[in-house]
Amino acid sequence: MSRIKELLATGQPGDAVTVKGWVRTKRELKDFAFLELNDGSSLAGLQAVLTPTVPNYDALIKQVNTGATVSCEGVLVASQGKNQRIELQAKALTLWGEADPTTYPLQKKRHSFEFLRTLGHLRGRTNTLGAVFRVRNACATAIHQFFQARGFLWVHTPIITASDCEGAGEMFGVTSLNLENLPKLANGQVDYSQDFFERPAYLTVSGQLEAEIMAMAFSNVYTFGPTFRAENSNTSRHLAEFWMVEPEMAFCDLEGDMDLAEDFLKFIFRYLLEHCPEDMQFFQDRIDQTVLATADQIIHNEFARVTYTEAVSLLEKSSRTFEFPVAWGLDLQSEHERYLAEDYFQKPVIVTDYPAKIKAFYMRLSEDGQTVRAMDILAPKIGEIIGGSQREERLDILTQRIQAQGLDPQTYWWYLDLRRYGTVPHAGFGLGFERLVQFMTGMDNIRDVIPFPRFPGSAEF
Amino acid sequence: MSRIKELLATGQPGDAVTVKGWVRTKRELKDFAFLELNDGSSLAGLQAVLTPTVPNYDALIKQVNTGATVSCEGVLVASQGKNQRIELQAKALTLWGEADPTTYPLQKKRHSFEFLRTLGHLRGRTNTLGAVFRVRNACATAIHQFFQARGFLWVHTPIITASDCEGAGEMFGVTSLNLENLPKLANGQVDYSQDFFERPAYLTVSGQLEAEIMAMAFSNVYTFGPTFRAENSNTSRHLAEFWMVEPEMAFCDLEGDMDLAEDFLKFIFRYLLEHCPEDMQFFQDRIDQTVLATADQIIHNEFARVTYTEAVSLLEKSSRTFEFPVAWGLDLQSEHERYLAEDYFQKPVIVTDYPAKIKAFYMRLSEDGQTVRAMDILAPKIGEIIGGSQREERLDILTQRIQAQGLDPQTYWWYLDLRRYGTVPHAGFGLGFERLVQFMTGMDNIRDVIPFPRFPGSAEF
Repeated sequence: MSRIKELLATGQPGDAVTVKGWVRTKRELKDFAFLELNDGSSLAGLQAVLTPTVPNYDALIKQVNTGATVSCEGVLVASQGKNQRIELQAKALTLWGEADPTTYPLQKKRHSFEFLRTLGHLRGRTNTLGAVFRVRNACATAIHQFFQARGFLWVHTPIITASDCEGAGEMFGVTSLNLENLPKLANGQVDYSQDFFERPAYLTVSGQLEAEIMAMAFSNVYTFGPTFRAENSNTSRHLAEFWMVEPEMAFCDLEGDMDLAEDFLKFIFRYLLEHCPEDMQFFQDRIDQTVLATADQIIHNEFARVTYTEAVSLLEKSSRTFEFPVAWGLDLQSEHERYLAEDYFQKPVIVTDYPAKIKAFYMRLSEDGQTVRAMDILAPKIGEIIGGSQREERLDILTQRIQAQGLDPQTYWWYLDLRRYGTVPHAGFGLGFERLVQFMTGMDNIRDVIPFPRFPGSAEF
Repeated sequence: MSRIKELLATGQPGDAVTVKGWVRTKRELKDFAFLELNDGSSLAGLQAVLTPTVPNYDALIKQVNTGATVSCEGVLVASQGKNQRIELQAKALTLWGEADPTTYPLQKKRHSFEFLRTLGHLRGRTNTLGAVFRVRNACATAIHQFFQARGFLWVHTPIITASDCEGAGEMFGVTSLNLENLPKLANGQVDYSQDFFERPAYLTVSGQLEAEIMAMAFSNVYTFGPTFRAENSNTSRHLAEFWMVEPEMAFCDLEGDMDLAEDFLKFIFRYLLEHCPEDMQFFQDRIDQTVLATADQIIHNEFARVTYTEAVSLLEKSSRTFEFPVAWGLDLQSEHERYLAEDYFQKPVIVTDYPAKIKAFYMRLSEDGQTVRAMDILAPKIGEIIGGSQREERLDILTQRIQAQGLDPQTYWWYLDLRRYGTVPHAGFGLGFERLVQFMTGMDNIRDVIPFPRFPGSAEF
């Protein structure tokens, strides 16, 4: 096994190796040719030097173009070039698959990310998308390592659900019925008894409520899986299908929740700088000159913590003119969040204790009867990156809150049972995985940090 | 942090600790009481000994029953009992949440798994389901460790898809349309231009085709995510929603694929015995007396490898009477697979090179023109646990195979592009995660190895 990443790191002149990968560029000179080979293991490719001593040189060098797949057998030598430590002196070249230079769409020139989105089946072969998906993998791995090292169980909460539990946003329907020929009841309504689940079913918007079930048995758990929103948001920050991380901890209050979230973000960024230094430098150089400073800021600052009430007061006292009004009881808008993180604190800030009226029913009501133990982590440049809360563990208050929001406690029988039998203070948070990857890489559009983005009008590939 | 698992393993008499968890049992004696506390970190609980010196002893001991949540502060002491090394001499007890013994459904007596399924929100607190979900987490973690250590990228293939790419089984439809009021075209058909994706969309049945895209850029990748089947199969081996693992490797043929699959299974089982010895012993003692032997058999045997043609010949020569006919060209039935693995080879066996006609279009056609480079791993007791193949990398043959199966090559434009530009031999396999957990634990019903099973008529919790 000779992955290019390993060869570039540890290969020594004299090592006999066989490298397998795709040709990124070819340069033909009079008596020899350079091929830059890439196998996806790293941003940098390995330069292979071919001379006419390679069997079938003349024919091969014509057939091998950008995008072609080859194996190259040879010996590593110290490179004369200034861009690499070593290169591969080829002894033999095998061509697996050609790429016709007149039709292969990924020629050397730069392509817009918008154009590359139409090439979802090829764009992973470009420098930027290659780096994005390596960072995405490292970030996902870091998430598992963080939680597993702390004894959290990874739990798989359901994707298909019969309840719109959070009342959060529009949901996709899931059905096995033939829409061209729906079975109907006598009153003309759809006969769901003939549907697969014998009732309307949806794609989940969050695994939190089920994660709470698991935390009430295993103390500390986390979800990491796909979630869905059917909102018609055609923006650079919304996806219809995205991955979410949701830890949930029993015997934990909001302070413990904030501590975990801060440790978590610091860990992920440290892991990334350690495991993907080359890709991160690429983002710094080519995509966004602030990504390394941003990572540094997360890792080395203690996050500020401020209550919503204090935050509103800071906003009111600021000399800034905001587009949206600031007043206690109104939700913070993106411009307010940015002012707090970027201008006032100039580092990540956790805003806590929001008005109950603008937050979900499951957040724990405070003694004041007006606020809930919620927290949002706001980061410079990106805004909200994590949202969490201590959950309402008291049966009577939770029931009232469900009713006050016009929901039916019957629907939540099992969620209420968790408060009826062995309830305990508990807390958790949610992190949108693609938002995090976007934040880390500085990529402008969230559609470019997931391999196959789903958004209004698009479910291609 | 004092998780019970760690205390049981490394706690020493004299250690001052605070344990937080749920009461599994209470035994009241004349002048003291025993509580068995469990926090989900291990099968075994920690025994707490309470004497009347504990503040508020009389009131607490009445309120604290099976299912209640408590914190118990005290000192570890050597246990007098023969079932544990240490126990907790309580100094103070905090009751977080009661569990009314007249209504809490998980009393000490044994419950059927069928009954427990109606208590999906509580069943994780039982010994068996607790062990299952810890094993499930360990197994999931082992999967990531195996692939990450080998430089595979975890790729997130889409859940919502516009193509029934494999032609494999019935799919769930996904829609944002209101089924009670579907928009219609002039001809009476559903107007999908008003649906979220502007065309019919489905839940994926496999991430393989998209994993191939990613392997053509990163060489080695794997998926690990939810997949769906809308088949009306009300059996102990089928779920409508299940997790699947699908590695895909460029520059890999069927032999490499089989080698990886065998290493993979051995690694997972070794990891499990190492990380969950207590839970595995529990399954051995209480659920299925063959689980440890099965694990042993996977770990210590070289898997047999036999072609389909040879397998058919072995079946024909056997003295066994089969219910289903055996003949070259017919698919192997479960009874045939069991005969091969359990009776003939008495260990896992990989059957290769199946007739092209009974396998999917993307499997590589062999020189004989009759068979494809497919493989199924059959394990004693469970039957097929892994199915894989070398993929057809030749554009012309793949196009013919798509057409021969009555499919439209246009639909597969991007899949064919992978063969047009830089194609290469590649291979992969699929493993049903719940089947694996079922196999490992000996659990009879697949609905008991996933936290919230989805099957016909059920999307509860």
